[in-house]
Amino acid sequence: MMESLHDTCKWGTGTRWGDGPNDTGMSRLTLTDADKSARDWFKAEMEGLGCTVSVDTMGNMFAVRPGQAAGAPTAMGSHLDTQPTGGRYDGILGVHAAVEAMRVVVENGVQTKYPLAVINWTNEEGARFPKSLHGSSVWAGTLPLDKALALADVADPSLIAGEELARIGYAGALECIAAANPLAAHFELHIEQGPVLPENKQRIGVVAGGQGYKWYTVTIRGRDSHAGTTPFAYRADPMLLAASFLTRAHGIARQHEGLVTTGIFHTHPGSINTIPNNVSFSLDFRHVSDAGVAAIDRDIKAMARELETEGDKYKCAIEFEPLFDAPAVTFHPACRDAIRTAAEGSIPQAEVRDIISGAGHDSCATNLHCPTGMIFVPCKDGLSHNPEEYATPEDCVLGAQVLLDAALLYDQGRKA
Amino acid sequence: MMESLHDTCKWGTGTRWGDGPNDTGMSRLTLTDADKSARDWFKAEMEGLGCTVSVDTMGNMFAVRPGQAAGAPTAMGSHLDTQPTGGRYDGILGVHAAVEAMRVVVENGVQTKYPLAVINWTNEEGARFPKSLHGSSVWAGTLPLDKALALADVADPSLIAGEELARIGYAGALECIAAANPLAAHFELHIEQGPVLPENKQRIGVVAGGQGYKWYTVTIRGRDSHAGTTPFAYRADPMLLAASFLTRAHGIARQHEGLVTTGIFHTHPGSINTIPNNVSFSLDFRHVSDAGVAAIDRDIKAMARELETEGDKYKCAIEFEPLFDAPAVTFHPACRDAIRTAAEGSIPQAEVRDIISGAGHDSCATNLHCPTGMIFVPCKDGLSHNPEEYATPEDCVLGAQVLLDAALLYDQGRKA
Repeated sequence: MMESLHDTCKWGTGTRWGDGPNDTGMSRLTLTDADKSARDWFKAEMEGLGCTVSVDTMGNMFAVRPGQAAGAPTAMGSHLDTQPTGGRYDGILGVHAAVEAMRVVVENGVQTKYPLAVINWTNEEGARFPKSLHGSSVWAGTLPLDKALALADVADPSLIAGEELARIGYAGALECIAAANPLAAHFELHIEQGPVLPENKQRIGVVAGGQGYKWYTVTIRGRDSHAGTTPFAYRADPMLLAASFLTRAHGIARQHEGLVTTGIFHTHPGSINTIPNNVSFSLDFRHVSDAGVAAIDRDIKAMARELETEGDKYKCAIEFEPLFDAPAVTFHPACRDAIRTAAEGSIPQAEVRDIISGAGHDSCATNLHCPTGMIFVPCKDGLSHNPEEYATPEDCVLGAQVLLDAALLYDQGRKA
Repeated sequence: MMESLHDTCKWGTGTRWGDGPNDTGMSRLTLTDADKSARDWFKAEMEGLGCTVSVDTMGNMFAVRPGQAAGAPTAMGSHLDTQPTGGRYDGILGVHAAVEAMRVVVENGVQTKYPLAVINWTNEEGARFPKSLHGSSVWAGTLPLDKALALADVADPSLIAGEELARIGYAGALECIAAANPLAAHFELHIEQGPVLPENKQRIGVVAGGQGYKWYTVTIRGRDSHAGTTPFAYRADPMLLAASFLTRAHGIARQHEGLVTTGIFHTHPGSINTIPNNVSFSLDFRHVSDAGVAAIDRDIKAMARELETEGDKYKCAIEFEPLFDAPAVTFHPACRDAIRTAAEGSIPQAEVRDIISGAGHDSCATNLHCPTGMIFVPCKDGLSHNPEEYATPEDCVLGAQVLLDAALLYDQGRKA
């Protein structure tokens, strides 16, 4: 598995960061020639294992091996596209582990009750065509096909997703919608992309769900005036208010056991000796439940109203511009049970933990239509979306074993 | 006086903001053709009043009327250059009030004990050649002449200050240094550029001195990581630390009765769902005494050390890069007394207040070599460096009267 993973990284090789043969990152943007090569490999590999490979109108690829009975397949899927400065594991590991699982099934002549599938979803990253979970969202019905195909390349807007899909030969005939191409379940192996597993020296995360989150641009309007000639009492200083806002927003998120982050901050006009006229900044907050997201939202807005009026201290107005709103995801108990049983069959219970996914994955889309579960393995220092992203071969292989075992357990538990 | 002030604003007229004939700002950058026209007017006007006009090697212009005895003149000065989007009062009012004072002296045949002078200082603003108090600093010996003349135009670096000075015909022969061209005293009328006089419905500020100030760029280094996958406990979030830093810095400045301002703030890499790797921001703090500036400096750095280590909460490092350091200024008691006596001769005592200058002025340079005093009059809403900068004709005339009376009082009090 690790050989095929690294060998296929010759398509879309990214930044070199070390001296070893695999010490390069990946830059395999979706629907490029490099992506086509990886897709060609996937198709040939799966057909070589006796699978039937179908491609839908979004380019999502379904490699299906029949079971003893007909029916929707139990699927293992992830994505082969990467960030422009990505690594060798985010998405890629999930597909290669699913391919390896299928190899083991075929080589051992395992007869599953129902069909077993391996899926390569299109453009999970949203890096080239700016919609993450691009292919799986159309399949899930949350993104219309025409809008999805009309997306323009962020670097060269003359290149359109649908045209690029046709150009590389992966605009399939299968209708891209769950009702027409249903799955019985979806399992996905992924690197954690966070520090929880490595910091706790644990090796398998049974993903309970994904956080809901909201994005705003917050603008605080004051009055620009001279830093030397304007006493505090006469200021309307949006920078000072922003400092209190950010500290209190952090406290609110902490109190609700959620997260809050400000990654972008601007001041206007931006002069050393001028109090800003206004400041604007991004606000990203998350919680494992939608109710938690709503509570943080409510408390932050109430806090903002307080700051606006607090003893006439700040004399600034605060505006919230909504940017994005993603509901929380809870994965299916049957899938989580299958993963935990599979994991505890391979490693001590203490090395297995329930975990929340902080990032979005194709599994968040499939979860709207079929029982879904995710398996996390540790990545070094929690680093991801970075050329140096790394997971040990041992953890990758363990993850693949758990993926295989969970899918087989789930298949065995299926009722007619 | 107001007629000549507005009439000469035809040289370097700026942005129109209203319908009235004088509802335009000013854009009279130093050593431009517009500045030459204003200088030509100044020279002709002062020679018409019987003054001898000398120009020094920095283009500073000294119009001197003899007194009963020889000696260094009692001077009234300011500047005729403006910001690119400036108004009609900052600097301009000070020169026109001094010219008017000289007119009154001449028309009334007043015999001063010692010579009386009106000064137009070169490039007070530092807007075109980036050194504020440009001409007066060379006179005061704090800026070497060769460096001053070598400054390049910020918009077109092929234009050099010394060459532009020669081009407009104002590179004079008089040595630009206080020892060669001494002043007995320097009085300057200026708009306040702040809210204290208008908010308190007062009309004359007797300037006690100018604040000292320091500028830093502060950089806080943390670690960039994913906003969704990184729990608070695993973060090194420089944005969160910056919020506490700014709130505490404000408290420190307030405690010392100083000022602190952050006008510029940057995050890196600047992505909504990424905790910044580092943030950097400007820090401007001020105090009326050098000891106060030093105390704020010391306390802010101690606070930063505390934040770096506070219960391992932030896990970030804080760096201070010094940018600028201006000592505090205390004006001469004799000049302040003359101004207060003059002011209380014109208006009720309740409308006169002692005040601190938040901005730098040519008087801060002259104060190093001769007794110096400044008079502030209110400007609308404290607005300055803006086309809509405005002072009422009544306040301008009152300021000119106080300027004249203070200079005459000082002259009368001079000993041989």
